[in-house]
Amino acid sequence: MKLTVLGSSSALPTSQRFPSAHVLNAHERLFLIDCGEGTQMQLRKCRIKIGKINHIFISHLHGDHVFGLYGLLSSFNLMGREYPLNLYAPENYLPMLLSHLKDFDINLGFEIQFTPLRGKDPVRILDDKYLTVTAFPLKHRVESFGFLFREKSSDRNIIKDCITKYGIPVSSIPSIKKGEDFITEDGTVIPNEELTTEPGKPVSYAYCSDTAYFSRLAEFVKGVTLLYHEATFDRSLSELAQTVLHSTTSDAATTARDAEAGTLMIGHFSSRYDDISALVEEAREIFPSTIPAIDGRTYDLKNLNDSQ
Amino acid sequence: MKLTVLGSSSALPTSQRFPSAHVLNAHERLFLIDCGEGTQMQLRKCRIKIGKINHIFISHLHGDHVFGLYGLLSSFNLMGREYPLNLYAPENYLPMLLSHLKDFDINLGFEIQFTPLRGKDPVRILDDKYLTVTAFPLKHRVESFGFLFREKSSDRNIIKDCITKYGIPVSSIPSIKKGEDFITEDGTVIPNEELTTEPGKPVSYAYCSDTAYFSRLAEFVKGVTLLYHEATFDRSLSELAQTVLHSTTSDAATTARDAEAGTLMIGHFSSRYDDISALVEEAREIFPSTIPAIDGRTYDLKNLNDSQ
Repeated sequence: MKLTVLGSSSALPTSQRFPSAHVLNAHERLFLIDCGEGTQMQLRKCRIKIGKINHIFISHLHGDHVFGLYGLLSSFNLMGREYPLNLYAPENYLPMLLSHLKDFDINLGFEIQFTPLRGKDPVRILDDKYLTVTAFPLKHRVESFGFLFREKSSDRNIIKDCITKYGIPVSSIPSIKKGEDFITEDGTVIPNEELTTEPGKPVSYAYCSDTAYFSRLAEFVKGVTLLYHEATFDRSLSELAQTVLHSTTSDAATTARDAEAGTLMIGHFSSRYDDISALVEEAREIFPSTIPAIDGRTYDLKNLNDSQ
Repeated sequence: MKLTVLGSSSALPTSQRFPSAHVLNAHERLFLIDCGEGTQMQLRKCRIKIGKINHIFISHLHGDHVFGLYGLLSSFNLMGREYPLNLYAPENYLPMLLSHLKDFDINLGFEIQFTPLRGKDPVRILDDKYLTVTAFPLKHRVESFGFLFREKSSDRNIIKDCITKYGIPVSSIPSIKKGEDFITEDGTVIPNEELTTEPGKPVSYAYCSDTAYFSRLAEFVKGVTLLYHEATFDRSLSELAQTVLHSTTSDAATTARDAEAGTLMIGHFSSRYDDISALVEEAREIFPSTIPAIDGRTYDLKNLNDSQ
């Protein structure tokens, strides 16, 4: 899985930082998480094929997480899209979206398959061959959800030379990849460990924005490979953070530590910070493996995993 | 007057071109014309102070000319704006805007003074100390308007040395700038030509997007210093242009020629063109003084005027 940050600003964008949007590439399928203004331009700048996006997740209904969606849907339409789009958003969003598209006379040539987000407990919202996605509640001024993308265990890797060496037929390969031994024509049992190597460790990614600190969040994202957690403010502004239900660097790092995350990525930075290196340093005091979200940059979760 | 192009793409943005938005700086007051997605980020990138924008003109209700407005209004709010904003747009836009802001729980801390655009003839929509703005109908799939910004004649420039030489009191300066002679204490009449120099020639700017060709448009923008006219397509696609009610390079150049414009700027380029130099060349065959709109670039209308 690879994550590309399209926007790392909070509500007020800056010349360096666009509003919130992340795109996760899992086995060449693209999952867009939040869609702040300018998302489609950032996707083009990063040379990401927008036609490959079939799943869009909206954390909550504040404009800096949604205002790019209208343009993106219009562009899908102009590009002749006909295949369905899966949209996961707070349940009251669908009528708002449809009314706005109607105002602008936009008749989508494709179906929107809408999954409403609601409730106070984690809910599995997607389960396919490669991964599961779970939505869980955050703590913000409006109903807000985080998302956990968890790769499924992949098959063991077969050692190619063994195929010739033991005359393994193609029909036996799937079961060997699942861990079974191979029995040759003369009845010799070749143990699976001789035929295969360990698959890569499955990785996971959690997106938590916007939210104030609450201790249960660490349970929702326990053991995640990469935790993206907003850190709108430095720790000196913890009172402000509590008032507007956002997080400080310390809040993000505490959650990462308690969740035993592999790496913490902080973002959703207030426009008051030109330089965010001090924010990263603050978080590292509590959780050393902290990196900042940087617009346009791509992070390979496998590499983050290997370096743990 | 100085014009900054914030976006020169048509409906589908590219990695180089944002959707439509221009900003005109007239005597340090900023006039925003159209507000495609990403306008606020482009304004910041161009280091234009968004708080100085008090007038926003929306040509028509297609998303690529409007979808940046929600984010910009939200940002005004977050920045604590309290002074009114003048919004000029097709008359049915106001209820749509208010309903969308309500959906997102955005309570503006400032008033929107709305001027509805309607009708089949040019209408003066703004008249202040420095300029007039006229809206005129275009020909598009939805009701669409162009805008003509015309600088008023400025006062003559007083020659500073004359103030000391003839002992001109401060109270007499305004009338001298208006062209009156000065009478010294001993009754000598000093002719105005000795005291002042010619003011700069007033400049004007017209914005025409989106529109198909129609001959009357040249009358609406007669003698304009800088004519911005969309040229979505090259001339080989004139049938497509007529179907979707857009213009080709030839349409834009013909209007510029018939209007006796100073300079033609073409823009709103289809995403099919990576390189727009061939479009500029086509237009120049009919109207040599053609330039392309380039995102992020600023054009001084006074210089365009001088070079005519």
